[in-house]
Amino acid sequence: MSAATTTTNVDPKIIDGRIISADIKKDIKIQVEKLIAQGKRAPCLVVILVGDRPDSHTYVRNKKKTASDLGFESIDCLLPGTTTQQEVIDIVKKYNQDEAVDGILVQLPLPSHINEASVLNEIDISKDVDGFNPINIGSLGMRGRNATFQPCTPRGCIEMLDRSGVEIAGKKAVVLGRSNIVGLPVALMLMNRDATVTICHSKTPDIPSQVKQADIVIAAIGQARFVKKEWIKEGAVVIDVGMNSVDGKLCGDVDYVNVKEVASKITPVPGGVGPMTIVMLLSNTLESSKKRQNYYLSIYISIM
Amino acid sequence: MSAATTTTNVDPKIIDGRIISADIKKDIKIQVEKLIAQGKRAPCLVVILVGDRPDSHTYVRNKKKTASDLGFESIDCLLPGTTTQQEVIDIVKKYNQDEAVDGILVQLPLPSHINEASVLNEIDISKDVDGFNPINIGSLGMRGRNATFQPCTPRGCIEMLDRSGVEIAGKKAVVLGRSNIVGLPVALMLMNRDATVTICHSKTPDIPSQVKQADIVIAAIGQARFVKKEWIKEGAVVIDVGMNSVDGKLCGDVDYVNVKEVASKITPVPGGVGPMTIVMLLSNTLESSKKRQNYYLSIYISIM
Ligand SMILES: NC(=O)C1=CN([C@@H]2O[C@H](COP(=O)(O)OP(=O)(O)OC[C@H]3O[C@@H](n4cnc5c(N)ncnc54)[C@H](OP(=O)(O)O)[C@@H]3O)[C@@H](O)[C@H]2O)C=CC1
Ligand SMILES: NC(=O)C1=CN([C@@H]2O[C@H](COP(=O)(O)OP(=O)(O)OC[C@H]3O[C@@H](n4cnc5c(N)ncnc54)[C@H](OP(=O)(O)O)[C@@H]3O)[C@@H](O)[C@H]2O)C=CC1
Repeated sequence: MSAATTTTNVDPKIIDGRIISADIKKDIKIQVEKLIAQGKRAPCLVVILVGDRPDSHTYVRNKKKTASDLGFESIDCLLPGTTTQQEVIDIVKKYNQDEAVDGILVQLPLPSHINEASVLNEIDISKDVDGFNPINIGSLGMRGRNATFQPCTPRGCIEMLDRSGVEIAGKKAVVLGRSNIVGLPVALMLMNRDATVTICHSKTPDIPSQVKQADIVIAAIGQARFVKKEWIKEGAVVIDVGMNSVDGKLCGDVDYVNVKEVASKITPVPGGVGPMTIVMLLSNTLESSKKRQNYYLSIYISIM
Repeated sequence: MSAATTTTNVDPKIIDGRIISADIKKDIKIQVEKLIAQGKRAPCLVVILVGDRPDSHTYVRNKKKTASDLGFESIDCLLPGTTTQQEVIDIVKKYNQDEAVDGILVQLPLPSHINEASVLNEIDISKDVDGFNPINIGSLGMRGRNATFQPCTPRGCIEMLDRSGVEIAGKKAVVLGRSNIVGLPVALMLMNRDATVTICHSKTPDIPSQVKQADIVIAAIGQARFVKKEWIKEGAVVIDVGMNSVDGKLCGDVDYVNVKEVASKITPVPGGVGPMTIVMLLSNTLESSKKRQNYYLSIYISIM
């Protein structure tokens, strides 16, 4: 019961990604067990990694460990940095066709000789557990459409808000960053949850005055301790997606120690959004597996 | 030379959609003539209309007239309100396969027994000149992606800003409305042009204070004369997409007469965004036709 142990001495201001992700993991594990008890196979995730970036390898190793802890099948496809774009695409296509594979993730960044969009576009939309396909991103913001998968880090941010009892509807949210994988999708998801969203980026002239209006701040710019205490409205909720290395130590995009004084809730780095991303990835893979294996249908039949 | 005639006595504050659209029409007409001079066929647009809403029929008639004036081929497919979803989809599929068709537009709204998304999703992305496919909408906001077509009304808004010399990059833009066809795509397009964008909607508690910050206001909510003078920052540019009928007269979402006093530029209704939409549709169809007929390739070969 690691979640219970860690809840002692918890600072009520801190949105603790370790505790929340541990709760979700427990739930995922139970669901995987149920799936298997129904005679289905374990959910299976393929991770494709090209090149030898140490950070990417660490990240992929963590994914594999968590996947295995939760009862997932996982296939790591580690390719040399010299792999051609066509070779990567051919591998993606192979796993697209493999009915025993539920999710395909291509670890980013890819080496510069490979076009990211060309590879990502090849992933079958029903296996795009990272949710980076433009169809998914478009559907996130559109009325009457449902994204097949919500991108993992943005979904992690929303889960943290929800599980901390933070109201989103009717609130003012300011998102710092507009990247395909964090800023843009999290902004669309907040909008779809009825927040009034402002998206800031490197061409925004007055970030402090924008942030000052926010009930919810999402910082995803990759600039160490960029967001200052003076910019934060008293009682705002601050989600720090940033992962920056300063003097060999990990820190976020928010000046945590000082901002914490005025925020009503805040995520630390490490131990905030970071642990959520992998869990959301596995959650998406589980959902994909259930659909692929007609889990809902078999439950329905067994109830009838 | 209707454009020249209308430019006399022009109020410098008014962004005149009639003049701008007439300029673009002239250009489109010349391009169609060049296409045909190259031995290609005229661009061809199919409009599918289900049911007998008078406003939709008027709109489709206007499209046909403008298309024909500019040298386009246009096919109107007028279907009774009783047409089934599958029948509409079958017609879309037929035109998808027809190489002589460059653009397919399904007039919205569809009757309530037809699912809008299911029909729109069937339109071949290379003929989706309305640009409503989620891939297009996602690509509008994503870095490193290009939408095949920019949705017509949002593109009309951006063209009006550009052709009036309004700087977008670095400016604060407030978009009122988040619909799939106007609010959301125009917000993404402004963001991609480096504006800092806030999207407001019916759950935004303090629209006046949001609008007050805007250098550029786009109003697309369908509420007659909703935006008031007091909400507008001195010198702001106001684009009014609204088309509302009040006492049998067309008016916009902006209290035009009063807002005009503080705005530096403003679009009237009628005569603002309205005339732009059809022109942008034909411009998208022309681009589609050029690609489909390898126009750029043949120009390249003739230069070589
Ligand atoms: N916790 C997790 O699991 C994850 C963490 N991250 C972390 O989140 C951060 C953002 O990642 P990602 O979105 O991929 O980064 P990108 O580099 O792709 O995007 C950064 C965004 O921030 C904007 N930006 C950069 N500098 C500034 C500035 N000084 N002021 C305002 N805006 C600025 C950029 O603006 P413009 O568009 O104008 O260039 C861009 O939109 C990184 O620290 C990354 O490590 C990312 C993914 C997962
Ligand atoms: N000039 C042209 O060619 C075109 C003009 N139009 C016109 O533009 C207007 C908008 O069209 P469309 O986008 O299709 O409309 P929709 O009805 O699809 O969307 C309206 C949007 O406005 C928001 N809204 C409605 N009332 C309010 C309010 N009181 N305060 C704040 N937000 C509000 C809604 O919020 P929520 O999401 O919360 O419901 C919604 O996002 C209409 O007048 C339409 O006729 C449209 C297309 C083309």
